[in-house]
Amino acid sequence: MEKRELLYEGKAKKIYRTDNESILWVSYKDDATAFNGEKKAQLEGKARLNNEITSLIFKHLEAEGLETHFVERLSETDQLVRKVDIVPLEVVVRNQVAGSMAKRLGLEEGLKLARPVVEFYYKDDALGDPLITEDHIAILAAATPEEVDQLKLMARKVNEHLQKLFATIDIKLIDFKLEFGRTESGELLLADEISPDTCRLWDMETNERFDKDLFRRNLGNLQAGYQEILTRLGGPTCTK
Amino acid sequence: MEKRELLYEGKAKKIYRTDNESILWVSYKDDATAFNGEKKAQLEGKARLNNEITSLIFKHLEAEGLETHFVERLSETDQLVRKVDIVPLEVVVRNQVAGSMAKRLGLEEGLKLARPVVEFYYKDDALGDPLITEDHIAILAAATPEEVDQLKLMARKVNEHLQKLFATIDIKLIDFKLEFGRTESGELLLADEISPDTCRLWDMETNERFDKDLFRRNLGNLQAGYQEILTRLGGPTCTK
Repeated sequence: MEKRELLYEGKAKKIYRTDNESILWVSYKDDATAFNGEKKAQLEGKARLNNEITSLIFKHLEAEGLETHFVERLSETDQLVRKVDIVPLEVVVRNQVAGSMAKRLGLEEGLKLARPVVEFYYKDDALGDPLITEDHIAILAAATPEEVDQLKLMARKVNEHLQKLFATIDIKLIDFKLEFGRTESGELLLADEISPDTCRLWDMETNERFDKDLFRRNLGNLQAGYQEILTRLGGPTCTK
Repeated sequence: MEKRELLYEGKAKKIYRTDNESILWVSYKDDATAFNGEKKAQLEGKARLNNEITSLIFKHLEAEGLETHFVERLSETDQLVRKVDIVPLEVVVRNQVAGSMAKRLGLEEGLKLARPVVEFYYKDDALGDPLITEDHIAILAAATPEEVDQLKLMARKVNEHLQKLFATIDIKLIDFKLEFGRTESGELLLADEISPDTCRLWDMETNERFDKDLFRRNLGNLQAGYQEILTRLGGPTCTK
């Protein structure tokens, strides 16, 4: 596969065209950002960690029968994915209260929810990715009501698989963010990444955090935390 | 009816006990507040205007067959209401985009919605009355799912009646906020107030605003705007 011109540069990844129209080349970046880009840093090794972790997780989900955009891991920092039209929604699944939910509702972090909750945030940096309701999704024409139902169902399924996967490595999946895309035929597909950048991952026993809160809240070394996840998942340690 | 001790003082009203356990005495205040209390002023006559307008509107809704907490107008600034246990939700109905919806979704004020939208905000000053989803309502145990369905239904009914009422006086009902309470038997009842403090009211032709945005955004004299609504509703002009 041949890497062609840069299509899009996001906060954590660069997306390139390839010689295959329906396949994109994703190159992870070492950039860490939080609070809608207000806090920034270059963290060497983050690109590798997120690419390796995302690749392992997407492969696992594919093996479990869930369709995703993932095609192939190319290198430590790069992967191929199917080209999809990204739905402008962040689909957040929560098993325990943390982060913005704790702030919004005035609840303590760690509180277990009676059942997983799915939330939608509008992907718009200028607006600060606001929480929106299903009515808002309709007003914005971000997705059809049928797609919203499907997104919720798919998000819950991913949650079930990820909870099981992380339980096997003694990790609690507190919450995570998914993005979905539409294929040319209009089918919804799990896209973007699933990594400690997009999940809250706490140690089952100690509640030690192995996710982006290490960076957001200056709780410790991000790379060490992400490497712990990668190692527990059976992934490679740093080759450098 | 005898006025007894002060039970609660809010931003715009004082609530007193009466000699009847199930009836409360509401005394409107001249205080204007906006942005969760950050902007404040004393505006002489506001108590009278909101008490008169709310009394007229609740009487109208009662006459149309909707049950409310309203019992009786007592004076220019005071009224009696049924004692209810207030549901900690602000139920907002929107017919056209304005205010926080315009900001949240990045849409222009005045945009007509294809159908009225009901939103829920959690009544909590410390949290800034955040927008919440129906799942959040369940987590907070602010209302049961059955009550949420009923609140939405009742809010839409109030909207239909208010839109008609305001149309007869050449006013567009852009949006409004309702509060509901539970009676001792657990029945939901429309409570609080319906006034230019809680509705956005624009002139049908000129889009002139006759609501609290006059104060929020320094658009003009609040009392003149509220008096215009009261006058068009056939209410009394100032007797002072």
